[in-house]
Amino acid sequence: MTALDERPVTTPAATTVTVAGYLGTRLRQLGVDHLFGVPGDFNLDLLDGLADGGAGGPAWVGSPNELGAGYAADAYARVRGLGVVVTTYGVGELSALNALAGAYAEDVPLVQVVGAPRRAAAQTGALVHHTLADGDFAHFSRAAAEVTVAAETLTAGRAAEQIDAVLLAAITHRKPGYLAVPQDLALAEVDAAPLAERLAPTSDPATLAAFEARLTSSLAEAQCPVLLVGHLVTRLGLAAELADLAARHGVAVVTQVSARGVLDADHPSFAGDYAGTMLPGPAVDLVADADVVVHVGTVLTAELTGFGSHRRPDARTPVLAAATAGFGDEDRGRVLLPDALGALDRALAGRVGPRFERPAVPAPALPAPADQLTQAQLWRTLADRLPAGAALLADTGTAWFGALDLPLPAGTTLSGQPIWSSIGYALPAVLGQGLADPGRRPVLVIGDGAAQMTVQELSTIAARGLTPVVLLLDNAGYTIERALQSPRAAYNDVAAWDWGMLVAGFTGGRAGYAEASTGADLDAALGAAFADTGRMHVVRAVLDADDTPPLVDALARLATAAKG
Amino acid sequence: MTALDERPVTTPAATTVTVAGYLGTRLRQLGVDHLFGVPGDFNLDLLDGLADGGAGGPAWVGSPNELGAGYAADAYARVRGLGVVVTTYGVGELSALNALAGAYAEDVPLVQVVGAPRRAAAQTGALVHHTLADGDFAHFSRAAAEVTVAAETLTAGRAAEQIDAVLLAAITHRKPGYLAVPQDLALAEVDAAPLAERLAPTSDPATLAAFEARLTSSLAEAQCPVLLVGHLVTRLGLAAELADLAARHGVAVVTQVSARGVLDADHPSFAGDYAGTMLPGPAVDLVADADVVVHVGTVLTAELTGFGSHRRPDARTPVLAAATAGFGDEDRGRVLLPDALGALDRALAGRVGPRFERPAVPAPALPAPADQLTQAQLWRTLADRLPAGAALLADTGTAWFGALDLPLPAGTTLSGQPIWSSIGYALPAVLGQGLADPGRRPVLVIGDGAAQMTVQELSTIAARGLTPVVLLLDNAGYTIERALQSPRAAYNDVAAWDWGMLVAGFTGGRAGYAEASTGADLDAALGAAFADTGRMHVVRAVLDADDTPPLVDALARLATAAKG
Repeated sequence: MTALDERPVTTPAATTVTVAGYLGTRLRQLGVDHLFGVPGDFNLDLLDGLADGGAGGPAWVGSPNELGAGYAADAYARVRGLGVVVTTYGVGELSALNALAGAYAEDVPLVQVVGAPRRAAAQTGALVHHTLADGDFAHFSRAAAEVTVAAETLTAGRAAEQIDAVLLAAITHRKPGYLAVPQDLALAEVDAAPLAERLAPTSDPATLAAFEARLTSSLAEAQCPVLLVGHLVTRLGLAAELADLAARHGVAVVTQVSARGVLDADHPSFAGDYAGTMLPGPAVDLVADADVVVHVGTVLTAELTGFGSHRRPDARTPVLAAATAGFGDEDRGRVLLPDALGALDRALAGRVGPRFERPAVPAPALPAPADQLTQAQLWRTLADRLPAGAALLADTGTAWFGALDLPLPAGTTLSGQPIWSSIGYALPAVLGQGLADPGRRPVLVIGDGAAQMTVQELSTIAARGLTPVVLLLDNAGYTIERALQSPRAAYNDVAAWDWGMLVAGFTGGRAGYAEASTGADLDAALGAAFADTGRMHVVRAVLDADDTPPLVDALARLATAAKG
Repeated sequence: MTALDERPVTTPAATTVTVAGYLGTRLRQLGVDHLFGVPGDFNLDLLDGLADGGAGGPAWVGSPNELGAGYAADAYARVRGLGVVVTTYGVGELSALNALAGAYAEDVPLVQVVGAPRRAAAQTGALVHHTLADGDFAHFSRAAAEVTVAAETLTAGRAAEQIDAVLLAAITHRKPGYLAVPQDLALAEVDAAPLAERLAPTSDPATLAAFEARLTSSLAEAQCPVLLVGHLVTRLGLAAELADLAARHGVAVVTQVSARGVLDADHPSFAGDYAGTMLPGPAVDLVADADVVVHVGTVLTAELTGFGSHRRPDARTPVLAAATAGFGDEDRGRVLLPDALGALDRALAGRVGPRFERPAVPAPALPAPADQLTQAQLWRTLADRLPAGAALLADTGTAWFGALDLPLPAGTTLSGQPIWSSIGYALPAVLGQGLADPGRRPVLVIGDGAAQMTVQELSTIAARGLTPVVLLLDNAGYTIERALQSPRAAYNDVAAWDWGMLVAGFTGGRAGYAEASTGADLDAALGAAFADTGRMHVVRAVLDADDTPPLVDALARLATAAKG
């Protein structure tokens, strides 16, 4: 199902292993071949025992700062099913906390591993560096507990058990976890025996059976059921299974915008993206008229539901979440999404209603090629040039809303942060995406304000030999905010950068660079960038400060209404 | 005493004022003329009412990201007595949490002001963006409470009172604070009357009198008292008072390394820096032989006390802290450091013992000019070139330890993070320092690993017209860690950057740039940089990856001993 299932279990020959080695083995078993992070004096023992082949552990990928490393690990986790960011205590971990919280909001199993001070220092409340100098060593683990599903500071007797608990919670719930490893425990020996058995969550058989029975009955007579698919399907690596299931059973599928690309645009079951009235289109009526709407891995936030204009689940709605399944808001039992999808497959096999006949979809109305470089022209040009099979990453802001209208070629994945919406996420995400799935070229669309947040990660991307295409939307600031309020306020402006110099400086001349001020410029630059697959390309598109993709107008209207 | 005392109280003419206006007025009263931060949709109302003359509020200084803004505000607070970073909720505030924690560790009154979601959203647990999508809106304020002395989310009835409480706590204790302003409260009206009275902490008169009496008696017969001065003296803007007091009373002064520069090197009372046996020199014997060691604003962490080789205070030791004064570990009452210093002044006036006769101090042994560019050569050259009256900022790592041996010209201030030690702090700190004290040229010494963390803040520094000299120690990674452990580990290497390109790219060509691979290169480059006071200069010194200032050897030795 996911990459991790194909991995052989590595059983260490010795009967004991260091804590760092135990962790490294577990991570390799779960699909983690790269660690992202920044070293610090409290994590050096940990890194010596964990990274770059210490006991066969994952490879080290150092980043300029912890936030970039955390974002990269988030993107890695979305592909591999688990990602890890390693930081030092206090100064390091806090800088990655935004990434950890984002992983919570976006359902990403990102585990932060922190090298912490020695146990004796913590026990005696020593006033050492990287602390608040108040003797309390638990401030930061308590902060981490606010944004993780499981947080542990390792202890001598329970280290292996604690590691397993945090990793299992993260992969079960697709939420972040936190592991602090005291400096003097990193290389302590623990029993290696548990490593012989792989960590794998399981469904409760009785709950699963009951769910399947009710689902079968719910769908048996359904004439026009619709599967509403959310991003948990991609987080669990189930996009291909879902596409196959839908095709075999002839059932209609609509996707939340956070799950764009789960089905190819020409899939016979695909009926479009659905976000209430925010996205006008055939999906709105299809969902409204459906006799059963099956929620498959959906998340129902304000923005993903068109600010409440979405059809809400009721007590008869089947809901398949990451680790639970049931109907409506009932107290749902432990059913893992892969198992629930199996139940759905069998339930649909028993359905007697007609197959979904996909209506003819009119080709999207793209603007004619023009010389003035508008957002509309930009997205039209990207649609022309984007090859099949890319990993499209769209940062928060106009980049994300533009990407929601972009026709996606076959096999394209799209990722971003539609819930957490932390600008700057997607640039480091290219690093994690590229290392996690070398067969797929990353294509990043990002605004200048967002890129300024995390720009230094360009250097890691280049140093690792990745070859993304980066389309920089340079509109001299935070255009998404200008669309919402006070468009002429100075706080929405950012300092002007010479991006050509910066790209050269960060990448050591390893990246192509072009600027586009007209539609023809952009077409030529994107054509050249996509044609040259051997190196990174950055294309800077110069846009008007107030120009936005059409969806932003809808968003601004709905957001203002929600506020008023 | 501090800048804020000279400010007139601004009394608004109207009887009500918006919450944002109330906050802005309070900040101006307390010396805050600049706000650092990043906008976000939840703080736009706040910024409209607060920044750039909204109700006469402070000027907006936008940064590429929140961590840089937080560090800049920290440096501003060290000069002005209060600094403010404004962020949006969740995604913004968490990125600045490292800066907030650093301010706690380093005793800096840095207040984070967060634009939060509307109260109705929080009350109903709405699933909106920038949240964890779990309905709990207090995760981030609880995290902030871990690293601040006061944290409040404003409410309708108590907004002004809450603002005053957080600001007063921050300036009293010289610790960070946190204020979350719900979007729909930012422009709500509150009573303006409290603004007529300035916020100012006060000492408890009886406690102050009792302390002064005991201090007078303690010092009356002292033959060889020593004032051990820590960084709280600089945090409270009391360096000049302390220097004056020491000169008048002929009392010996030694400084913790976190308070280097409080006394000029040729001050008749100055007997050197003191950090136990980590810093060999006359201060060690002077402190050992003192009959009374008065702690004036000291902080006794492991690193600042030479890993416990410091002379510890006992029950008879006078201790003057930020907001308390007393003897030894006794439960100390509320006595503010300025008042305690007044008591010390009067107590010393009654002393009958001899005046301190400063021994002849041998000139520091500097290496001869040489062609090979070593760390020793670099610090010697900086000593030759550094003009009087600069604001020297040294980042954590070899830069900090080199700066501790550097002879400081008259009127030089030195700042860094000897306790929190978060690499990357000092580059954005140049922004805050430069805006807070335009009369003092910032001089930054920073390693390449540290500069990679926060490099984008160079653009804000240039855009604001600041003219620092930046000395970049480029040793291809984290040399301070190489000195501690595993010097050849790949995790201590960073990606190579073309710094000349980057400086040009971030500053729009407004900065001078030079590279130095020999001693003569460096001397010429620093000479030119210090001579040209009209613009920023960056000098990149190319150093061997394992070369360190001498103090690092002592540190590594003591740190290893403490670990073993």
